[in-house]
This record gives sequence, structure tokens and C-alpha cells, in this order.
Amino acid sequence: MPLILDAATAPTLKELLRAIPESQSLVSAVHNGERFDDSHVVQGIGPLGSASPSEISFIVSPKYQTELAQTRACAVIMTQALAQDNESVCREQGFATVLCPQPYLLYALVARWFDQARQPAFVPGIHPTAIVDPTAQIDPSASIGPFVTIGANSRIEGQAQLHAHTVVGRDCVIGQASILHAGARCYDRVQVGKDCLIHSGVVLGADGFGFAPNPAAAPGAWGKIAQLGGVQIGDDVEIGANSTIDRGALDDTVIGNGVKIDNQIMIAHNCQIGDHTAMAACVGIAGSTRVGARCTIGGAAMLSGHLTIGDDVHISGGTAITTDLPNPGRYTGVFPAAPHTEWQRNAAVMGQLSALRKRLRQLERG
Amino acid sequence: MPLILDAATAPTLKELLRAIPESQSLVSAVHNGERFDDSHVVQGIGPLGSASPSEISFIVSPKYQTELAQTRACAVIMTQALAQDNESVCREQGFATVLCPQPYLLYALVARWFDQARQPAFVPGIHPTAIVDPTAQIDPSASIGPFVTIGANSRIEGQAQLHAHTVVGRDCVIGQASILHAGARCYDRVQVGKDCLIHSGVVLGADGFGFAPNPAAAPGAWGKIAQLGGVQIGDDVEIGANSTIDRGALDDTVIGNGVKIDNQIMIAHNCQIGDHTAMAACVGIAGSTRVGARCTIGGAAMLSGHLTIGDDVHISGGTAITTDLPNPGRYTGVFPAAPHTEWQRNAAVMGQLSALRKRLRQLERG
Amino acid sequence: MPLILDAATAPTLKELLRAIPESQSLVSAVHNGERFDDSHVVQGIGPLGSASPSEISFIVSPKYQTELAQTRACAVIMTQALAQDNESVCREQGFATVLCPQPYLLYALVARWFDQARQPAFVPGIHPTAIVDPTAQIDPSASIGPFVTIGANSRIEGQAQLHAHTVVGRDCVIGQASILHAGARCYDRVQVGKDCLIHSGVVLGADGFGFAPNPAAAPGAWGKIAQLGGVQIGDDVEIGANSTIDRGALDDTVIGNGVKIDNQIMIAHNCQIGDHTAMAACVGIAGSTRVGARCTIGGAAMLSGHLTIGDDVHISGGTAITTDLPNPGRYTGVFPAAPHTEWQRNAAVMGQLSALRKRLRQLERG
Repeated sequence: MPLILDAATAPTLKELLRAIPESQSLVSAVHNGERFDDSHVVQGIGPLGSASPSEISFIVSPKYQTELAQTRACAVIMTQALAQDNESVCREQGFATVLCPQPYLLYALVARWFDQARQPAFVPGIHPTAIVDPTAQIDPSASIGPFVTIGANSRIEGQAQLHAHTVVGRDCVIGQASILHAGARCYDRVQVGKDCLIHSGVVLGADGFGFAPNPAAAPGAWGKIAQLGGVQIGDDVEIGANSTIDRGALDDTVIGNGVKIDNQIMIAHNCQIGDHTAMAACVGIAGSTRVGARCTIGGAAMLSGHLTIGDDVHISGGTAITTDLPNPGRYTGVFPAAPHTEWQRNAAVMGQLSALRKRLRQLERG
Repeated sequence: MPLILDAATAPTLKELLRAIPESQSLVSAVHNGERFDDSHVVQGIGPLGSASPSEISFIVSPKYQTELAQTRACAVIMTQALAQDNESVCREQGFATVLCPQPYLLYALVARWFDQARQPAFVPGIHPTAIVDPTAQIDPSASIGPFVTIGANSRIEGQAQLHAHTVVGRDCVIGQASILHAGARCYDRVQVGKDCLIHSGVVLGADGFGFAPNPAAAPGAWGKIAQLGGVQIGDDVEIGANSTIDRGALDDTVIGNGVKIDNQIMIAHNCQIGDHTAMAACVGIAGSTRVGARCTIGGAAMLSGHLTIGDDVHISGGTAITTDLPNPGRYTGVFPAAPHTEWQRNAAVMGQLSALRKRLRQLERG
Repeated sequence: MPLILDAATAPTLKELLRAIPESQSLVSAVHNGERFDDSHVVQGIGPLGSASPSEISFIVSPKYQTELAQTRACAVIMTQALAQDNESVCREQGFATVLCPQPYLLYALVARWFDQARQPAFVPGIHPTAIVDPTAQIDPSASIGPFVTIGANSRIEGQAQLHAHTVVGRDCVIGQASILHAGARCYDRVQVGKDCLIHSGVVLGADGFGFAPNPAAAPGAWGKIAQLGGVQIGDDVEIGANSTIDRGALDDTVIGNGVKIDNQIMIAHNCQIGDHTAMAACVGIAGSTRVGARCTIGGAAMLSGHLTIGDDVHISGGTAITTDLPNPGRYTGVFPAAPHTEWQRNAAVMGQLSALRKRLRQLERG
């Protein structure tokens, strides 16, 4: 990766820390090393193993001490304890040490600072190629990109950004400072809260999968149930690339505040997801299931429909949940992988488990 | 959710039922309640628990009687039997009762009526920003939205709707009254039947995943097998958001009439899906597998390639199918989830099943 | 499927083979049959069972001999051995026999020839509706389609094709002769090598799923970790429709040369995929996992984060990998499907496996 900032615009370490208000209380001391003086600029942040001499780095655990001893970073964020344990390494390596009781938090703040520093200037206004319905309300401080379409009666609030090819249907709201990345799409009657981040290819408000048998049309035929509800997304929600959240059949599908949804996740009609719940990629949640607050759902986990999952439930990746989980805790159901021939031997017994149990009982009875 | 229609345009209950021809034979009687008279307008439909006083609702099972006793709906669709069992509730609540032997069917019809009533007027014609190849045939009653592109020799039939950013390649057909939602894409030689509903982000006709080892290029290298086939979609098919159906290697990939495909489903090259088969979200079907008619496939089920699945086969969610299933019936294969520590205890035994069986045999032999 | 070429432009068999340089060494002999003479044109290629009299076909295994006896193809590629075993069939059927020791390879070459023959002429240049940043470098031999957007400092190399609605962010590279199909999207700082094929709906470089607990904001709240890395895609990589590859947190996410990625695959931030590894549809790989070279990963397999998978590892479809796999070999972990009631009987025992093992031990101890 090229450096984030060029040398001319990059800050010195002092300037960088001064630009991050939280560092005042977080950083207890900064010791310049031999390779570092106050004029040295910091052009980016990198992991210990690959940081360049113009980048700052960080160490969160003693298990990375080998990398620390070899890092080319010009400065390293670490705890005082770790600095003491590695005093000679720090001296020999000659980087600056930034002492901080929470190195991961300071890393996050520094990363955010660099991320914002390299963003192009925000350009409010409506690109001339965008097609905006005359009844839509666009805040003058919002940014509407090329080839965007916005339907009737929709409202785009201040500082919101709609990147190229985004589509916002009728009667929608995109809340303040929310960002829709290129090609994200909202059907009609979708409400997105404030400070949301909706990634490319996300589809909000497609029809829920609702059908009723319609044997009058043909044996086995399905009749469509119109999906009249909408989608409500809370504030501070992130939705990853190509995820889909369907509109409700009658009521809305509801995503709470602070929910974090990774890529390629499917949330079906009428689901309700509680505040601050996070789910990793490829999760699927079937219709009308309610997930509580502060849950975590591992990648590729699948939840059946019409379930109630309580608060603080943690579901392991790859697990299929088919019953209510009212109580907090961690739940798992993954078939352990093994070398193929070993799996074959054991999988063959799966179909005999019930019979084996009977045979065991008979033996026990003598 | 806001009400579907405003009071000025909403129908009275009588007008609503009159507008639904099927209700003539379905509705046996309507009894106005205390809160309802013939001038009361119905602005939408909602579930018992959340319907507003301007909305109609319905009850399909006695288990919702608690909600019935508290509903604010102005009218409720129910069977005569249920109305009799809840006579005092109906009287006290004061809603109108719409007696009907099949409340769910009438709900579906009412929902469809409201859905159509709120649709914006259909505007035929080609948006000036659309790019249509001069050899493409666009029926004058079709509607081609902004930023659409349509390739050479393609045909868009009457009343078809191509929403913003849809792409139709060369030599395609989009059948009568079919709808492609924003950003749905057809590669070359894709045929979509009549009355289909293709949601946003769907990709029809991307290359099948066909490679042959090409060790001449590099050890382990793959050579691409050109995918010459196309995709054929029958009539009355719905395909959910971000699903993908690949083109065949030589023959076409074929989706039968009335097939219902939920979101994020993957159907690989050369598959054939029988009429009226329905599959829930996140299903994957590998190449050349044939699925019969009237099957149902639960969410996140996975079918291996080159299988033959008969008619009327029902596969449970999360199930991996790796062998032919010629006979009708329901098939399942899900690892049951459990509290994590319990799972750990039992999963550890999975690798010993075959050994356990042997030990059991030895005990039996004495 | 209609024929690939019309009779006027289609080659004779001799012309077809002459147009494929490799056929000189591959084809040992061609015998015209009764239904075939040197003036017969070949308009396409089809499977034995459905090829028309104007199409060539091929047979790779004796198990297709029944289809061979009934094929309508005008010419069939086969080995000398198979031709001898089916001498009378070949004579009676009257097709031309193309003798070749590797019929599948010749099929692939013929298919590729037809695929290229039907491609519309490549039109270099920038479509007038495309929006290209003035600092971007577009090779004059590249083809930029309608409604494409290209950001600052990006470089599009020679013969590259960006189809309709593709988006290329800032500081990107699209390598020579690479193709981005309609609606593929690259965020900022994504590098795609040469000769790559990126299908519709692919998203490269969306934010990795990185959050840290932020209890100061709210109990259970998550704070976003800026994702500063990029994505590097090697040469000769194919990425299937709607797949997503996230940008790294600090370093880049890296996809090696010759990697083949099917549809709807998710590769999380900081993953590294070795050269020539192929993965079937719906695979998910969690963050920071490294997969070696020449691996194959079956459909819907899921890999946990921070794993190391060695070279030449083959993971079966539907398998969840939760531990390192340093050694080559095939690994599997799928719950075998069964008729539902049978599954129920056996799945009920899953929660007792550990207890059963204990009971067995007790019996063994007498």
C-alpha cells in the first residue's frame, strides 16, 4: 500500500497527537528514539511487520514482541509495562515510543484521523446527471452523485452522501450524514437514520418472500402476497456490501440503532434486530425473527423464521438456529471438519445414532 | 408505517370489497360495529396488534384472540366460527366484522388491492437517458427507465418495466409485463418470460464456473471453458434481490414457470429448476443439478452438482444435499445448536463415532 | 439456444480447425461421414444429446455412448480408441469424426473460438456519458462504457473494458485486457491485474468489518475501526457475480495470480489467497485468513478468521473450517442429510454423545 499522506502534508508525531483530542488523556508520555526527532513526519500507520520508516505502528499484546524487535516503524504505540519489558529493544530499534494504557484505542483514533485526512473534500450539491423528483427534498449540504435517482416525496438530510448510481425510491428518508456507497439501492418507503454507512450493492426494501398456495392457477402454483410494509434503519448502522434487507409484509422490518451488518447478509421481512447487535458476513435471518440487543452472530450462521432471540445472545459462526433462544449465552452447532476419510468413517455412523443408543441401553440392562 | 392511502382517496369498506371481484363469493356477511359505519374509510391494512383505527385487519387462527381483544383496527376479516366464539369481544371492540371462510386469502386480495392503489401511474416510453441499441425492439407500451442500456437484437415486450440502471445485453427477451427492478442485469442471450419480477442486484447469465486444469500455463493453473449457453426464465417467476443465475456451458440454464427464488440465491450453470419450485434465501445449487417441480428448498440449503432431485421434494433449511433424491418427501441434515460448552462436549465425540460403534459391537459379542 | 453463427459466416470444419492453432498438434485425423462433406459449415458446438445437425460435439467418456448413437451433431470430437469401439455407430450416424487424444481440451478450444467469433467488435474509447476524472489515465485502446465513473489518479490500461455502470474509485489500477462487467464496483485504492474477468455486481474494496467496543457511547456500542488498506488482485483472476472482497484494515487484502472465485463469495479484510486457488460459489472466508496456493474450496464452505491454510488443501463443499490446516489433503465436515423423521431420531442423540461415551466406558469396565 502506498503511504497515506505525502511528506509535504504529513504531520509530525506531535502534530498528529495534538490533532486527536482524546490523545491528551490517553497518552502518558512520548519518548523520541534514535531514528526519530521532532521534525520526523508520520505519513501513515501500519502493522509492526510491514510498517515503513515513515509510518507509526502499535503493539497490543506481548505475543508480537518478535515483530517489535524487527519493525521499521518510526514510532510505536504501547503500554508502559510493555515498554519496560522491551526497553533494550526500543532503544536499539530507535523508534519513538508512545506510551498509552489502551494502545488499540489509540490506534483506532490514529487510523480514523488518517482516514479522514485523505478523504477528498466533501462537495455538497446535486450532480447534473442525477435525476431528482421535484417533490423530493434535498438538503443543500447533502451530496448527490452522478446517475443517482431519487423518487417522489423522499427526503435527503444534511451532509448525507449518495454516491454514483444509488437509487432512492419514493417516500424514503436518508438521515443526516449517512452515506450510501455506489450502487446501494432503496426501494420505496425505506427510512435510513443518521450517521449510517450503507455499502455498494446493498438492497433495502425489496419484496419479502411471501406466497400462498394458489392451486386454482395450477397444481403447486404460488400466489404472491403483496409486501406493504417498509424498512426502518436506526442511527449509526453499518450495512456491508451486497447485503439485503427486505420490506415487511404489513409492518416494517426494523433494524435498531448501532447495528453492524457485514457483507452478503440477508435479513428477511418483518425481522426486528435490537440495538448494537453485530453480525458477521453471510448470515441469513428468516422472516419475522426478532433478535435482541447486543447480540453477536458469527459468519454464515442461519436463523429460522418466527424465532425470538433474547438480548446478549452470541451465536457461533456456521450455526443453524431453529428454536427460540431467550437466555443470554453462547450457542454453537457446527459439524467439526476432519480429513475426508476420517469424516466418511464417522459420518456413516450418524444415521445409526439412535440405533446405537438402543443397543447401548440393551447392554446396560444386561 | 404511514397509512397507505390518505383519507380523501381511501375507499369505504363497501367500496373496497366491491373493488375486489373475488370478495363477492368469498365474503358471506359484513357486520358494522359500534366504531364503524358505512362512511368510514379504510386507509390500509395492518396486523391486529399494530393496525390503526383507519386500517382493516384479519385473524387467521384462534391463537391471536388476545390481539383481537385489543385491536384498534376498524374492521377485521375472520371466519364465522371465530366471530361466534368471540361475539362479545367483537361487540365491545366495535370494529366491523367481515365474515369469510378463507381470511388469509381475502387478506392477500386486500393487500394486493392496496399495493396497486398506491403504485404511481405506469408511464410507458423510453427515458431520454436510456441507451437502446437501434436493432433492439421496444414495445411502445413498455417502460424503460433512466440510465438503462439495452443491447443489439433484444426485445422488450409490452407493459414490461425496466427500472433505473437495469442492463439488458444482446439477443435477450424480456417478456410481457415483466419487471426488472433497479440495477438488475442480464448478460447476452438471456430470456425472461411473462409476468416475472426480477429484483435489484439480480445477475442473470454471468459465466458459469467452468475451468479445466491448464498445467502448461503454470503448475496448478486453470484454463477457462467459454460459457456458450444462455439462461431461460419461464413465466410468472420471481427472483429475489442479489440472486445470481449463471449461463450454461453449452445448453441453457433453465428456470421453469412459476418458480419463486428468494434473495441471495445462487443457481449455477446448466441447472434446471422445475415448475412452481420455491426456494428460500441463501440457497446454492451447484452446476448441472436438476430440481423437479413443486419442490421447496429451505433457506441456506446447498445442493451439490450433477444431482437429480425429483418432484415434490422438500429440503429443510441449512441442509446439504450431496446425493440424488428421486423420491418425494422431506429431507433434513442440520447439526442441532446447543449451548457452546455442551456442543464442545458432544462435538468432541463426533470424531470417535466409528470407534465407539466398534467398541459397542465388541461388548455385544461379549 | 439459437446457433452461435449464421450459415453465411460459419466456418467449415477444416476452416474451424485451421483457425485453432493448437488443433494442428492435437488432431490426428478427421474422417468425413455420410452426413458430412467438406462444404458443410459448423455453426456452433453442443452436447451430444442436444446438438443440432449444424453443430459439432464431443465425447469424453464411454459412458456417453448411448448419446453418441443418437446424436444429430455433424461432427464429433473423440479419441481414436473410442472411435474404434464405436466404428459402426460412427458409420451409421454419418457424422464426421475428429480424432484427438484430449477431446475435452479440443472442446474447450473450439468453444473459445466460437465465443470470440460471436463477440461484437471491440470498440475502444470513452462513451460520452462516462464521467472520468481529469487526473485519471485511460489508455486509448481501453473501452469505457456508458454511465461509468472513474476517480482521481486511477489508471485504466490497454484493452481493458469497463462495461456500463462500472465504478472505479480513486487511486485504482485496472490492468491490461481486464474486463469489468456491468455494475462491478471498485472503491478507492483497488488494484486489478491483467487479463482479469470481474463479473456484474462484484464489490472490491468495501470496508472490512472492523469494530471495537465503545462502551462510552452506549452499553454494547461499537466504534468503527477505519479500514486504511486496499485490495490487490493478481493477473488472470476471475471473480463471479456479486462476490465481495473487502479492503484491509492496514495492509491490503491480496488475491494471487490465477485465482478463480465463483459467485457470491465473501473474502474479508486482510485475507491472502494463494496463486491458482479456486473456490466454488457461496464460500465465505473471515478476516486475516491465509489460504495457500492451488487449493480448492467447495461451494458454501466457510473458513473462520486468522487461520492458515497450506498449499494444496482441498475443502469439501458445505464444510466449516475453524482450525489451521497446514497439511495438504482433503477435509470435510458435512452433516449427512436423511429423510426428516430419520434425521430427527438421530439428531436427538447428538446432544447425548458425550454421555453415551461415558456409559460405554462404564460397560467396558464391567
